[in-house]
Amino acid sequence: MNAAFVVYDGLTALDFVGAFDPITRLGTMGYLDGEWDVCARTPTATANAGLRIGVDEVDPDLGEYDLLFVPGGYAARELVSDGQFLEWLRTGVDCEYKSSVCTGSLLLGAAGFLDGRAATTHPSAYGLLEEYCDVRSERVVADGNVITGRGVSSSIDLGLSIVETLTDRETRTEIAEQMDYPYGEAVGP
Amino acid sequence: MNAAFVVYDGLTALDFVGAFDPITRLGTMGYLDGEWDVCARTPTATANAGLRIGVDEVDPDLGEYDLLFVPGGYAARELVSDGQFLEWLRTGVDCEYKSSVCTGSLLLGAAGFLDGRAATTHPSAYGLLEEYCDVRSERVVADGNVITGRGVSSSIDLGLSIVETLTDRETRTEIAEQMDYPYGEAVGP
Repeated sequence: MNAAFVVYDGLTALDFVGAFDPITRLGTMGYLDGEWDVCARTPTATANAGLRIGVDEVDPDLGEYDLLFVPGGYAARELVSDGQFLEWLRTGVDCEYKSSVCTGSLLLGAAGFLDGRAATTHPSAYGLLEEYCDVRSERVVADGNVITGRGVSSSIDLGLSIVETLTDRETRTEIAEQMDYPYGEAVGP
Repeated sequence: MNAAFVVYDGLTALDFVGAFDPITRLGTMGYLDGEWDVCARTPTATANAGLRIGVDEVDPDLGEYDLLFVPGGYAARELVSDGQFLEWLRTGVDCEYKSSVCTGSLLLGAAGFLDGRAATTHPSAYGLLEEYCDVRSERVVADGNVITGRGVSSSIDLGLSIVETLTDRETRTEIAEQMDYPYGEAVGP
């Protein structure tokens, strides 16, 4: 299970790290074999509030990963019109699992990955997402292997849902306990 | 309101970013004037699962900040015996607000900042924290201007509690809404 965590200038760090934590625990806590990379089109990425995040792979072929994860951020609304960025994202068309949180869903949508799907995004972006798919308001929406989360902090719920999808409920519970995360919500639709 | 976010090799990224998000929104959403720096004794810090985090200030005098925040991580249990690290942390003795989450509380304790205080940490580290202070099990514990959070994900609750301490409940509610965070728990003791 190899995962690509996409980052870019203007992402929201918590969108990214909220899911990165539980998903990578699958590896660090020994549940699954696999590797993960922080992937971008640039050597570094600066998130909200100036936080700089190291990039492992610059401009990789995203199709070489099993799981694609795309966070949101204030830059996402502009990246939906960035042809080169979308072209790069589309190299992940063959990823078995595609996921996003917050306005990252707009990027999945603009890449064409939400065609005919149900998905969610930050409540402030529901209108924008309607261009690409059937918009839902649940905190985590799984439609086949396309799994999306609502706003910023729902990234944790999204990550735990992906953990459960890749393993089982018991593993999700154990990882949530290690994260000291008592919350959660049913996955829709 | 200037904040120092301490990082180090072996921190847990979500411990850090969970609080970084709401606290820095005080500035980016225009509630408070202030700056914040990612501070470390090294030019970069590598968190759990290999995530590299950029450092703004190397070896700064932490006493120049109003708020000190210390995340936990697998390295924290060793850093409690690192005299040079603790000496650096103690430069923050005059910070008006001192905060930590997860095993970061062991570092606040080893620095002497929890003497005579009530505090919390990751449930797996309650025993270790007893050496330094009165250990509580609430998700966020505020004892005067020393505010601590329990395990990893409670960093969000901690950050929102700090937001409320520095402003008011209405601001906390607005920031939590922007973060799409519907959860929360009363602050103890």
